[in-house]
Amino acid sequence: MDIARQAAAVIGRVREKKPLIHHLTNYVTVNDCANIALAIGASPVMADDPAEVEEMVSHAGALVLNIGTLNTRTIESMLIAGKKAAALGKPVVFDPVGVGATTLRTHTAQRIIQEVRPSVIRGNMSEIKILAGMNAGIRGVDSTADEQGGEAIARELSRRLGCVIAITGKTDVIAQGDKRCLIHNGHLMLTGITGSGCMTTSLVGCCCGAVDDLFAAAVAGVAVMGIAGEIAQKTLKTGEEQGTFRMRLFDAISTMQPDTLIHYGKIN
Amino acid sequence: MDIARQAAAVIGRVREKKPLIHHLTNYVTVNDCANIALAIGASPVMADDPAEVEEMVSHAGALVLNIGTLNTRTIESMLIAGKKAAALGKPVVFDPVGVGATTLRTHTAQRIIQEVRPSVIRGNMSEIKILAGMNAGIRGVDSTADEQGGEAIARELSRRLGCVIAITGKTDVIAQGDKRCLIHNGHLMLTGITGSGCMTTSLVGCCCGAVDDLFAAAVAGVAVMGIAGEIAQKTLKTGEEQGTFRMRLFDAISTMQPDTLIHYGKIN
Amino acid sequence: MDIARQAAAVIGRVREKKPLIHHLTNYVTVNDCANIALAIGASPVMADDPAEVEEMVSHAGALVLNIGTLNTRTIESMLIAGKKAAALGKPVVFDPVGVGATTLRTHTAQRIIQEVRPSVIRGNMSEIKILAGMNAGIRGVDSTADEQGGEAIARELSRRLGCVIAITGKTDVIAQGDKRCLIHNGHLMLTGITGSGCMTTSLVGCCCGAVDDLFAAAVAGVAVMGIAGEIAQKTLKTGEEQGTFRMRLFDAISTMQPDTLIHYGKIN
Repeated sequence: MDIARQAAAVIGRVREKKPLIHHLTNYVTVNDCANIALAIGASPVMADDPAEVEEMVSHAGALVLNIGTLNTRTIESMLIAGKKAAALGKPVVFDPVGVGATTLRTHTAQRIIQEVRPSVIRGNMSEIKILAGMNAGIRGVDSTADEQGGEAIARELSRRLGCVIAITGKTDVIAQGDKRCLIHNGHLMLTGITGSGCMTTSLVGCCCGAVDDLFAAAVAGVAVMGIAGEIAQKTLKTGEEQGTFRMRLFDAISTMQPDTLIHYGKIN
Repeated sequence: MDIARQAAAVIGRVREKKPLIHHLTNYVTVNDCANIALAIGASPVMADDPAEVEEMVSHAGALVLNIGTLNTRTIESMLIAGKKAAALGKPVVFDPVGVGATTLRTHTAQRIIQEVRPSVIRGNMSEIKILAGMNAGIRGVDSTADEQGGEAIARELSRRLGCVIAITGKTDVIAQGDKRCLIHNGHLMLTGITGSGCMTTSLVGCCCGAVDDLFAAAVAGVAVMGIAGEIAQKTLKTGEEQGTFRMRLFDAISTMQPDTLIHYGKIN
Repeated sequence: MDIARQAAAVIGRVREKKPLIHHLTNYVTVNDCANIALAIGASPVMADDPAEVEEMVSHAGALVLNIGTLNTRTIESMLIAGKKAAALGKPVVFDPVGVGATTLRTHTAQRIIQEVRPSVIRGNMSEIKILAGMNAGIRGVDSTADEQGGEAIARELSRRLGCVIAITGKTDVIAQGDKRCLIHNGHLMLTGITGSGCMTTSLVGCCCGAVDDLFAAAVAGVAVMGIAGEIAQKTLKTGEEQGTFRMRLFDAISTMQPDTLIHYGKIN
């Protein structure tokens, strides 16, 4: 079965299994992440107190860690939840939002990688370059790095960290050891709304909560977002832009079926 | 006057009185709760620091406590605000989100019930069963309990705690002592967006801030959400799903009038 | 060049420069603020931990401080970030949400004004009257003050604090020393959604991050919101209200061009 069909099958499994996905994420896009998880058929939960995250993650199918608005309390919670998930063999999907922009973000990302050993890391090119120890223009949370060499960087980082690496951008790159997949879906309008990266990570988390093959899960989560962006953009009429696009994105995810991936996917 | 007409009258009162509704709620759905409160004609405010909640709640018509993303700081604030509201004779509406899923949630819910003595508790069947001391399948924040026996549970818990109990689900049950009301409105799509429970609690809070009869207020708040879900769903065309539904839900609440309740309400 | 043309030019500069706008803001409307900043062409970032705000603000073109859901931790962060921005000569735009409603808000607003010396303050009439040391009916975060005397108050406060003052309401007043501008755009529906004030402040922040003339920047940010409200309202059909209006507001901002300001602006 080729990777596009495998990814399509993942979406079917999410809708059947409705996995509980525990998020420790930022307060900017948390509502979008909850809605996108529901739209793809999963059940999101967003507990973040150190006193309850171990218990909550033990109910979950996967854990999403996102440092978009990290603070002392939630860094502690992320490490506790992450270690517990790892100990229970549950997949941890890590989104190193804005790593490199501040020492706190870089240091926290390093701690999460070393102490939790995430199963999947999803970031933009700037973020992944920083994690790979390279120079990357980063100023806020949006990528400013060029996309040259993404494949090699993803493969090398995947081997070094022993996890799936997903770089999203004009062309998305997913790597796990020697395996790699490129996804040519998506639309520039996705960069014009907040949370498209965070939501992609949440979708990857939903997929990881539903199947054992985390490479296929990462491909599925990333592809779903790109395809939904294309579908949403195609519906727009004159005068309809960011607001309508955002709404239609959720429509597109909630109507997404395995066949949609087969039909629209530009995955190889 | 039957309960449907009483509930309709409550909505009229909210629009006339524009009560200030102080929320201590979670960061996942807080924007939705603020917008739904505005849509029904109330004025929401979301202060949550221990140093200001007593002062803020003293301006308010009602207080909403929601433990969706509780933490040490906000638990303290909820208890302070709740006790102050109770001391001032202002209604407190409590949403025990995810109670039973973690010890922290269960313990906090018990403290709020004992120390604040809420006027109304709104939850799904899993949450209310946990509060009633029964076993209930709960894993995250979505209900997995069956709805058998809701009426008896609601009445018993209402008598024991001396407050209005509202269980929302396929059929909603509202009980206060010997009184009970069933609401047959709503649509399954409400379970496909985040915050439909939280928003229902906020609507109940808005109604409690406008009238003295908290039973009628709870019926009105719950009915408004169910009816809005039906109206929103009916507008959907092919390809329109979660995203459009959510937007239309707010349209339906903001155009809701007393007559809408009379026309659409399946309340008895 | 008259002020309307200057404001139009500011919008063009935001779209060219794409300034990074660091926000320390509330968790109720933070997603809306991020999306509105993207819609006008800026790049928002929302870090709020004391340990990283100095570093983050040093990358930014402007800083937005909004006390909508202030707490001990974020008050400290706001002061740290604000002082750093001031030291670096970066504009600080302050939104004193709900000042006067609690002692904590009033005290924090005073500290920010004294210790940070914001470049622009944007509030509703109640909030600005409180800052000016006048009595003002304030109960939550919505203005209840009448709009009499706005011009005189804005000019006097601007001179006293040495910053631009923007009062938004039915007629918006922007003042800087002896200069003043009135904006007659906007629609009452803007008061029916949460965050219209916060989003206006964010738009002002985006404009301040793109040009040196902060008076023109404040006029541009405020005018954009009013005009977008008018455009959004005009598109509504029967049954479409708060939900659709909100979505169209983002459409209107993201399609807004310098010419739109010239065409729709009622600025003098």
